[in-house]
Amino acid sequence: MSLKISSKIKLAARNDREDHIIQIGDTRIGGKNIAVMAGPCSVESREQLMEAAHGINAHGASLLRGGAFKPRTLPYSFQGLGVEGLKILADAREETGLPVVTEVMAPGEVSVVEEYADVFQVGARNTQNYPLLKRLGETRKPVLLKRGLSSTIEEWLGAAEYILNGGNDDVMLCERGIRTYSKLTRFTLDVTAVPLLKEVTHLPVIVDPSHGTGVRSLVTPMAAASVAAGADGLMIEVHPRPEEAMSDGAQSLTVEGFASLMAEVKPIASAVGKKLGHT
Amino acid sequence: MSLKISSKIKLAARNDREDHIIQIGDTRIGGKNIAVMAGPCSVESREQLMEAAHGINAHGASLLRGGAFKPRTLPYSFQGLGVEGLKILADAREETGLPVVTEVMAPGEVSVVEEYADVFQVGARNTQNYPLLKRLGETRKPVLLKRGLSSTIEEWLGAAEYILNGGNDDVMLCERGIRTYSKLTRFTLDVTAVPLLKEVTHLPVIVDPSHGTGVRSLVTPMAAASVAAGADGLMIEVHPRPEEAMSDGAQSLTVEGFASLMAEVKPIASAVGKKLGHT
Amino acid sequence: MSLKISSKIKLAARNDREDHIIQIGDTRIGGKNIAVMAGPCSVESREQLMEAAHGINAHGASLLRGGAFKPRTLPYSFQGLGVEGLKILADAREETGLPVVTEVMAPGEVSVVEEYADVFQVGARNTQNYPLLKRLGETRKPVLLKRGLSSTIEEWLGAAEYILNGGNDDVMLCERGIRTYSKLTRFTLDVTAVPLLKEVTHLPVIVDPSHGTGVRSLVTPMAAASVAAGADGLMIEVHPRPEEAMSDGAQSLTVEGFASLMAEVKPIASAVGKKLGHT
Amino acid sequence: MSLKISSKIKLAARNDREDHIIQIGDTRIGGKNIAVMAGPCSVESREQLMEAAHGINAHGASLLRGGAFKPRTLPYSFQGLGVEGLKILADAREETGLPVVTEVMAPGEVSVVEEYADVFQVGARNTQNYPLLKRLGETRKPVLLKRGLSSTIEEWLGAAEYILNGGNDDVMLCERGIRTYSKLTRFTLDVTAVPLLKEVTHLPVIVDPSHGTGVRSLVTPMAAASVAAGADGLMIEVHPRPEEAMSDGAQSLTVEGFASLMAEVKPIASAVGKKLGHT
Repeated sequence: MSLKISSKIKLAARNDREDHIIQIGDTRIGGKNIAVMAGPCSVESREQLMEAAHGINAHGASLLRGGAFKPRTLPYSFQGLGVEGLKILADAREETGLPVVTEVMAPGEVSVVEEYADVFQVGARNTQNYPLLKRLGETRKPVLLKRGLSSTIEEWLGAAEYILNGGNDDVMLCERGIRTYSKLTRFTLDVTAVPLLKEVTHLPVIVDPSHGTGVRSLVTPMAAASVAAGADGLMIEVHPRPEEAMSDGAQSLTVEGFASLMAEVKPIASAVGKKLGHT
Repeated sequence: MSLKISSKIKLAARNDREDHIIQIGDTRIGGKNIAVMAGPCSVESREQLMEAAHGINAHGASLLRGGAFKPRTLPYSFQGLGVEGLKILADAREETGLPVVTEVMAPGEVSVVEEYADVFQVGARNTQNYPLLKRLGETRKPVLLKRGLSSTIEEWLGAAEYILNGGNDDVMLCERGIRTYSKLTRFTLDVTAVPLLKEVTHLPVIVDPSHGTGVRSLVTPMAAASVAAGADGLMIEVHPRPEEAMSDGAQSLTVEGFASLMAEVKPIASAVGKKLGHT
Repeated sequence: MSLKISSKIKLAARNDREDHIIQIGDTRIGGKNIAVMAGPCSVESREQLMEAAHGINAHGASLLRGGAFKPRTLPYSFQGLGVEGLKILADAREETGLPVVTEVMAPGEVSVVEEYADVFQVGARNTQNYPLLKRLGETRKPVLLKRGLSSTIEEWLGAAEYILNGGNDDVMLCERGIRTYSKLTRFTLDVTAVPLLKEVTHLPVIVDPSHGTGVRSLVTPMAAASVAAGADGLMIEVHPRPEEAMSDGAQSLTVEGFASLMAEVKPIASAVGKKLGHT
Repeated sequence: MSLKISSKIKLAARNDREDHIIQIGDTRIGGKNIAVMAGPCSVESREQLMEAAHGINAHGASLLRGGAFKPRTLPYSFQGLGVEGLKILADAREETGLPVVTEVMAPGEVSVVEEYADVFQVGARNTQNYPLLKRLGETRKPVLLKRGLSSTIEEWLGAAEYILNGGNDDVMLCERGIRTYSKLTRFTLDVTAVPLLKEVTHLPVIVDPSHGTGVRSLVTPMAAASVAAGADGLMIEVHPRPEEAMSDGAQSLTVEGFASLMAEVKPIASAVGKKLGHT
C-alpha cells in the first residue's frame, strides 16, 4: 500500500509544509498542545450549558462545544435553540474564557454563526456540502471539518480544499467514525486516519470518540488511543445529566466522567511529549 | 429479519397508503409506467445537451436529466454552467416536450432552479442537508431524493419526511448505490432497496444504475434487474460522446447504447405488466 | 471504472472462453436453462426433507438443496444430522430424481459427502478455506462456491482457481449477499456481481436471494432481479413449515411461496430467452 | 448503544470473570505484561527466520511469529515451507528461547503443528472454520484467534466459544482490521474492539497493526494506539529485508524499525501501568 494521494489536492496536501497551527486568542490547535473541545451535544438551556461549561473548564478543556442548529434525522426531533443557543454559548465564553465551537448547516446561517462563535463546525452530513464550504472559505474564522460517514481520505481533503481555496487557511479535520457493519458501536472510529492524515496533510487532526463509538464506556479509552496515535485534539460530549439529554445521552460523559478522562489521557499525552488541554 | 420501520416516520411510511403517483404534465411517475430519466451528467453546451435530448426522446425517455450546479470533489473541477445550464435545459424541454430534472445544492439556489426545472434533484451528498430539504418542502414541484452514500433506509425516509412535512407530497426516492468495499464497481447498487421500499413506503422508487455501477457495460443489465425488482423509474446517464464528457464519461451510454438499453429492458417491463418510458 | 481483473487469475478468467456448462445427469447448469436449487436450510428429519423435496419438484425445481453439516455461529446450536442427513438427501434423490447439493466444511468430510451428494457446496465462511478447496479440486463432482461475506471478486475467483487448478472444471459461483451497514436486511445482495462475473469469467453464476436478503417477502423480487441481470441459477430456501425451522425460518418460503416465486420469475426468464428450472 | 452481548455466549463472556492469563513457560499473555509477537509473515528460509528471530529477541519481543502453512489468494503464490518451516521455527525457539506462534488451516494439520509450535494461530479466513475450531478445542495449547474480515464481535466470540467448549481455556483474540471502503489502507483497524472486548470478555486481546493497516509507516502509531486502548499484546510483522519478502513486504518493519516501535510504544505502556515485551 502507498500513502500517495491525488496530486490534484494542492492546498490541503502536506507537500513538505510544517504542521499548521491555528491560534484562537490564547488557545492553540496543533503543535505540542492537545486541544480539548468539550460540552453538550445540544445547547438545551442556559442552566445546562453554563453548568457544562464551568465543569469542563474546571477540568482543563480548551474550547466549549455545543449545538444550536442541529441536524436531526427526523423533522419532529428537537432542532436546536438556534440564535438563542448561539447567545447562550457566547455568554458561556464570557464567563469561562473558552472559545466556542458550534455547527453551521447552510450558507445562509454562516453570518449569524460567525457573529457569536469562534470556530465553525461542519458536521458529517455536510462534509460535501460544497456551497456551504465555499461560503466558509470567505470567512476568516477556523473551520472544524468533520469526516462524512463514508468519506474517503481524498474526498475529505477535497472538501477541505474548497475552504482553503477560498482563502481561509484555518481548517482542522475531525475523525468521528465511519459507517461499517458494526452493531455494538454506533460507528467505527478510524483511528488509523490520524497518523495517515499527519503524513499526507499539514492540517490539525481532531478525534471525536463520543460520536465515533456512541458508547460512554468506550470514550475514554478511545480518547487515549487517539492521543497515542498522534491526534492534535479531542472533541468530547459532556452533559451535566446525560440521562436527561435531548440528544446523544448514551455517549455523553458527566462532568465527573470528563474529569476522569482528562486524568487518564494526561499520562498518554505526556508520553508523546504533549500537553493536554489547558491542564 | 423484519421490515418494521420506526413509527416516528409518519408521512413517508406506507401505512396502507396506495402507491403515490406524481404527475408532471402528461408524464406520470409511479403506477404502471416506468419513468425513464436520461441525459448527460452535466450540461456542457447547448449542442451537447440538445443532441442528447433529441436522442433520448427518440428512443422513449420520459424526462430529461442534466446537471447545471455540480457537486464536484475538488474545487478545480468543472462546476457546471449554473443558470446558463438551466436555460439550456428549459430550451431542450421546449424542443422535445420532456420535463426536466436537475440538481439543486443549497436553499439559496432553490428559487432559480424552480424557475426553469420541473423536478428538483437532491444528490447523494445532500440527502441529509436538512435546511435544503426544508426549503424544498415549501415548493410545489416534485423532488427526486437520492440516497446518501451510506444512508440507512430509515435515514433516507427521515429525509423524505422533512420535505413531506413541509407540505410537498411529491417525493420520489432514487437508489444510486451505496459505498462498500467493492473495487471493480464505483458503488454497490442496492437493488433490494427497491422491493423493500415498495413495502414500507408509498413513494415512487427510481434506480440509477449509471452511478450505482460506474461501469458502462453494467448499466443495461442493472436497469433490467431494477425493473424486475419493481422499480418505478430509471435514471440513466447518456452523452452523445462519452469519451469527451467533462464528468462521468466511463458510466455514460451513447445514444445508441441508450436505444439498446430500452430495447433490452422493454420485455422485462412487459413481463411485470408495465410500460417503459413513452415507448 | 474498468472490469480488468488480475492477469494472475488464469483458469477462472473468461479469456474468450465460451460459457461453461455443467452437466449432472439430465440437469444442465449454465446456458439457456436457469437451474433452480431449492430445499430447506437444514435436513431436520426424513419427513421434513421428503415433503420439501416433493413440493419443490412439483413446482419445477432442478436440484434439491439441504444441509447435513451445518456451520453455526455457536456450538450449542443444531449442528446438522451429519451422515444421517446425507442418507436422507440421497433417498430424496431416489424418489424425486433431483440431484442433491449439500455443504461440506472440511477436507476430511469430502469423501463421505462425495458418496451421497451430486454437488459440493462451499459456504460463505469457507470461501477462502484453501485446504478444503484443494481437496475439492481432486474430486470430479461439481462445486458450488459461495462468495465470502466480504470477498472481493478477485478473491472469489482466486478461490475458484484453487479448485480448477486441481483439475476439477465444474465450479459455479454463488452470490449470497455481502456484509454492509444494512440493518433491515441480513446482507446486501450484490446483484451487480452477476453481469460483472458473466463478463470476466465463463463459470456459471448462481444467486441465493434467501440468504442475501434474510427476509421472506424480498426473496421473490430479488430472484426476479437476479434472472433479469443474467443469473444462470437460483438457490432458494424452502421449508414445509418455516415457523418450525431449526435454522433460517425467517427467510424460508413455504412450498406455496416457492410455487408463487416460480410463477413470477418464469415470465422474466422468458423475457431474457431462458427456461426456468424443469418447468 | 449498549454493550450487551448475546446470553448464548457463555464461556467467552466475561460474566464477572477475572482477566484470563495465558502462561507459556515464562511468558505470560494478559495482565500487566504486553506480549509482543514479532517475526516475518512467512518462514522463507532458515537464514531469514534466524536473522528475524535474533533481531526481535534483542529488542524485547516475547514470542516469535512466522507462517509455515500460508493461506494465499491464488494457488500459484508461495504456499509456505510446510513442515520444513515448522522445524525452522522450533530451531529458532531453541536458539532464542522465544515461544513460537504459527498458523494452522485445517483439522488434519493440527497434530503436526502441535508438535512444533507453542501457540496455534487461526487466520482471518478461518475464523468461522468450525471443524478446525472444534479440533483445536481438543488440544491443550493456546490459540490466537484472529477476527474474520467482517466478523461481528458476537460471531468472533462464538468462534472462541467453540474452542473453549472443547475444553481448551487458552484462547486469545486478535484484532487485525476489518474490511471497509478504505482505499489507502489495506483494512480498517478497529481499535475500539479492544476496550469493547475487555468489557465483554475475559480473554486476552491482541492487536495486529501490520495487517490492520498494510502500510509500514502506520504500524508504530497504531501499535501505540492499541496499547493506549488497553491491548494485552501486539503482533508485528518484521522481516530482515522487507523489500525481498515473499509476502506482505509493504507492511513489514525491518529489525531497526521494530526497535523504534518498541522504543516509541514503551512510554505508552508505562503510562498505562504495563510492561512491554520482555524489555
